[in-house]
Amino acid sequence: MEKHAQAYIEAHALHQFVHTLFVRAGLPPAHALDAADVLLYASRRGVDTHGVRNLKPIYFAQMARNLINLNPNFTLDRETPVSARVNGDCALGLAAGPWAMRLAMRKAQEAGIGMVAIHNTYHYGAAGYYPYMALAEDLIGVSMTARFYARDHDYGVLPTFGARSMFSTNPISMGFPTQDEPPWLLDMSTSVVPFNRITMMRDNGEAIPLGWGVDADGQPTTDPTQVRFLYPLGGEREQGGHKGYGLAMMVSVLCNILSGGWDQLYDDDPAAYEGYRLENDGHFFAAFRIDLFRSVEEFKRGMDAMIRALHDAPKAPGHDRIYVAGEIEHETEQKRLRDGIPLSPVVLSDLRELSAQYDTPLTLL
Amino acid sequence: MEKHAQAYIEAHALHQFVHTLFVRAGLPPAHALDAADVLLYASRRGVDTHGVRNLKPIYFAQMARNLINLNPNFTLDRETPVSARVNGDCALGLAAGPWAMRLAMRKAQEAGIGMVAIHNTYHYGAAGYYPYMALAEDLIGVSMTARFYARDHDYGVLPTFGARSMFSTNPISMGFPTQDEPPWLLDMSTSVVPFNRITMMRDNGEAIPLGWGVDADGQPTTDPTQVRFLYPLGGEREQGGHKGYGLAMMVSVLCNILSGGWDQLYDDDPAAYEGYRLENDGHFFAAFRIDLFRSVEEFKRGMDAMIRALHDAPKAPGHDRIYVAGEIEHETEQKRLRDGIPLSPVVLSDLRELSAQYDTPLTLL
Repeated sequence: MEKHAQAYIEAHALHQFVHTLFVRAGLPPAHALDAADVLLYASRRGVDTHGVRNLKPIYFAQMARNLINLNPNFTLDRETPVSARVNGDCALGLAAGPWAMRLAMRKAQEAGIGMVAIHNTYHYGAAGYYPYMALAEDLIGVSMTARFYARDHDYGVLPTFGARSMFSTNPISMGFPTQDEPPWLLDMSTSVVPFNRITMMRDNGEAIPLGWGVDADGQPTTDPTQVRFLYPLGGEREQGGHKGYGLAMMVSVLCNILSGGWDQLYDDDPAAYEGYRLENDGHFFAAFRIDLFRSVEEFKRGMDAMIRALHDAPKAPGHDRIYVAGEIEHETEQKRLRDGIPLSPVVLSDLRELSAQYDTPLTLL
Repeated sequence: MEKHAQAYIEAHALHQFVHTLFVRAGLPPAHALDAADVLLYASRRGVDTHGVRNLKPIYFAQMARNLINLNPNFTLDRETPVSARVNGDCALGLAAGPWAMRLAMRKAQEAGIGMVAIHNTYHYGAAGYYPYMALAEDLIGVSMTARFYARDHDYGVLPTFGARSMFSTNPISMGFPTQDEPPWLLDMSTSVVPFNRITMMRDNGEAIPLGWGVDADGQPTTDPTQVRFLYPLGGEREQGGHKGYGLAMMVSVLCNILSGGWDQLYDDDPAAYEGYRLENDGHFFAAFRIDLFRSVEEFKRGMDAMIRALHDAPKAPGHDRIYVAGEIEHETEQKRLRDGIPLSPVVLSDLRELSAQYDTPLTLL
């Protein structure tokens, strides 16, 4: 049994439940299906920070606050055969993200490469879902999402030598198709750790290592109740934190400036910007065909060879396996498809509340 | 005066000296010019690990060992309007890199985006030089370079939970044009630190922090004389090292598998692979037009706004500036264009030796 789980639910039953909830909340069925796909991807693969756990506190909360346009009309600010800039029309991020990634994939199939930047939308779920979509068509996929806090914010990621957060955890994700090995799929925030890791250690009464974050005064701390701002990947400057900060800003430029989402609102309408600062996210997607470079089959054999070389490499003392990106998530997915998806007490309580509110049955294993 | 410098040389004089050396060593004048441009970029901007310091120990050593084809014929294994896979024909990396990046840039100008993977060549200098080339045409540029050590190697970067290095320091570089601020230019290895940083601390008799690397037995060490393998960015797993490892592998896939440089040689000819393992590098370049998404002017204004927001952000205790990527290098470049480029005793001695060998005068300030 997984820690804190009190109930299990079959993956398809959970998918149907989430899909029905979104439809009953007013989303068009196709958008509801995309949203359920994104959340179930994370819940199946053990990325529980980005799965159905967020249904009530993020997505249904956004709808309850009337932030979300339930029937958005995605429009193209600019388009070429290889690119598009999309206005997300205040759509739910779980609907806008898949729409934009599919556009990038279609362009990749037709022109070799597709890049799509989208503004004016919200939290898009697990970054890894979008390259995962591309894997199904043997495309190499990329996704990133970011917020830039031009004025200091209550939480988030520090720039190196800064005392207040300026970035969200700005993840980068990329996926490569494989032959017999599980698909290689990197999905990483550009901070040292996600905030939920700290919450968990606080709940367990554990101290956090130095180098994860600082308190409200900008002082490094090991106290999980005092930590307020996270270091970028690498931690302090001495350990290479300026590189994580550089990656965080790279993601922010692609998602927030290239999309026009940040500075356009800021320049034109400070009030809109205030709303943006708190809620809005920009995303960047790319996809490209492997056969621009080599045959798909050759590439996949090469991926398998590299993965096996890493599996076979000498292990550090106390370790008997070397993993590659996406491997642990793939194994969790196999297990959860067999045994069901565990639901923590908090998540189960949220789902039961939504079940009652939208008159949608929740059937546990 | 900069530490350890005993001599200064004017930047243009150094460029001419390097150019002449390469011509006298047998390189075609256009390749010699590219090679001098790459090295001077690094030496002007204070990236001294990748500047003229490497002239003798890397590039002239490769030529002395007859690894380099001085008159290479770059051929296209595959080509589309947006992409190419290039066979580097055993060219000097400083000639092959600029050729391949220019191809990516030409494709970007014509089709919006260009991606080029190149195999069968060598060390290409500072990764940052290639996005810097793109900045001159208001393109967004990307470059990466990698070696993958399928069997364990004497030095390099560990996979998480591994005891032997499998990767070189596999850098990622990306550049964004700006309006009035210096260009934003990230150039980062995917290891915690470069090896030369450890060499320097060893020479100074200093201990290195835990989390930089391990000894020959895979044990973490603070002894710079014992450290043998570097951690990926982030260090150990607890501090996010699996993310640096993920980035290192991402770079290796794009440079070594997508290019065909690693697994093709490995499959077809184990002897060629042995040579490859020790010497060969694969590179990946990309460029794309900003006006795929927004007007160049709007984008540059957005970049300036983001950079200024970071400059204006609250500072950590003991710090009075927040930098953005490329800013310190830009300031160093202004200073060195004014005061000259400092040469350490070792580098000066190397240059004097090459000066004598190729009958090329070296004129110091």
